[in-house]
Amino acid sequence: MEQKTIVWIGAGRVATHLAPALAGAGLKTLQVYSRTEASAAALAGMLQASFTTDLSSVVSDADYYFFSVKDAVLPELVAALAPRCGAGAFLHTAGSIPLSVFEGLGLSRYGVFYPLQTFSHGRPLDMRAVPLFLEASSPAFAAELTALASSVSARVYSLTSSARRKLHLSAVFACNFVNHCYTLAGNLLAEEGIPFEALLPLIDETAAKVHRLSPAEAQTGPAVRYDRNVLDAQLAQLQDRPLCHDIYELMSRSIHEEAQKQNSEKQSI
Amino acid sequence: MEQKTIVWIGAGRVATHLAPALAGAGLKTLQVYSRTEASAAALAGMLQASFTTDLSSVVSDADYYFFSVKDAVLPELVAALAPRCGAGAFLHTAGSIPLSVFEGLGLSRYGVFYPLQTFSHGRPLDMRAVPLFLEASSPAFAAELTALASSVSARVYSLTSSARRKLHLSAVFACNFVNHCYTLAGNLLAEEGIPFEALLPLIDETAAKVHRLSPAEAQTGPAVRYDRNVLDAQLAQLQDRPLCHDIYELMSRSIHEEAQKQNSEKQSI
Repeated sequence: MEQKTIVWIGAGRVATHLAPALAGAGLKTLQVYSRTEASAAALAGMLQASFTTDLSSVVSDADYYFFSVKDAVLPELVAALAPRCGAGAFLHTAGSIPLSVFEGLGLSRYGVFYPLQTFSHGRPLDMRAVPLFLEASSPAFAAELTALASSVSARVYSLTSSARRKLHLSAVFACNFVNHCYTLAGNLLAEEGIPFEALLPLIDETAAKVHRLSPAEAQTGPAVRYDRNVLDAQLAQLQDRPLCHDIYELMSRSIHEEAQKQNSEKQSI
Repeated sequence: MEQKTIVWIGAGRVATHLAPALAGAGLKTLQVYSRTEASAAALAGMLQASFTTDLSSVVSDADYYFFSVKDAVLPELVAALAPRCGAGAFLHTAGSIPLSVFEGLGLSRYGVFYPLQTFSHGRPLDMRAVPLFLEASSPAFAAELTALASSVSARVYSLTSSARRKLHLSAVFACNFVNHCYTLAGNLLAEEGIPFEALLPLIDETAAKVHRLSPAEAQTGPAVRYDRNVLDAQLAQLQDRPLCHDIYELMSRSIHEEAQKQNSEKQSI
């Protein structure tokens, strides 16, 4: 079987993690395009591919075009390359962009290849553990995409655009908002001269717990029973941080609401 | 040196983790008191100690009395035992209760022994990695307590009552609120039939990241730049969940505020 070829449109954190994984699975990267020369050169170097910052120089004979760019510029890049490169399959890696971004451009094979993970530069990850969520323009292309994704990850799911949008939103809670809770906790500690690292065992254990228990079962703290005395005493400590105060109030109400839901579910069994 | 002895008042999750660690460090548990016989018996069995559910049967000759009970009942239990058992040192393990809970009762040696961790029944933890925050009635007792704590954990800090209260509040953010973000994320996934475990690699990596980066540096997502288009589209998905909607709104504002603070700090360097 002939070796399949890839062009990467975008050389950011997602591309920098996915591209080597696909190379490791035997696909050959022909070229990397990025508006930023340093990024294009870095990823191309990693993949022993050529690079360009000129959209009109993107080669037209690749099997797959992976678009891994900011949501806002994805539609225009897809539209710009479709006429010349559209014999290849077009794929994007974005959580919130529907499959329909590829429609109406004369493309015959296109899809979504969305990895649910937070990627950092310079931090390698076990890609086989990263869930990949796929969507494809046809059942035949879905089968091809599933085979491709399975060569990279052990967790491959297929998902509609609207479900993927919900998944992306859930990742905002599980990653972005969680990380911000770490920030707010660290700010409180800093006031007392306590280093952030004192929280790391607690942070690690909180994450480890939900491998065994559902997060609703794992929930602890004064908000579960909505202990007004404890809550008010803690809120009083946040009086000079209005946003943080309101987050505490809302999160506590939401935790309590969820605990009551859990309780009534238990009682109805 | 004579073996030091302990009585545990309370047999909940904190006691169940701390007591075996102290036993492992060579202290002997004489007795476990709990209002709940099954809990008292279980912990006493683990420590080869006796147990009681009757406060007036608590032995009076222990070196240390560890109070590890709900905040609301701590003052009355301390007051009830002080007259008869006050020759021993009294300690509590609570984040939000000041040292002064022991004052005015004729006690001469007392302190706080607060482990910053979320404990679950049936899940052993490496206690040497759990930070212990100490406060003591005198410099001499502080030295004794530090030696005791160091036999259990590699991370021993001393902290005033008001700083400990702040620390406890920060743990609410880093543990309770983080876990609730997991719950809200899981609820969104459940609507699409996606199992919660799909989030675990993301959850683990989000926790792992702040071992290397400060959480403010690790922050990603649409709220950092306050991208109103993306935020509004995500908020629209939460319209039938008013609390969740408002949490999203507040967290996003707070993330953006923090990002601006970071930026202005960078620019002023």
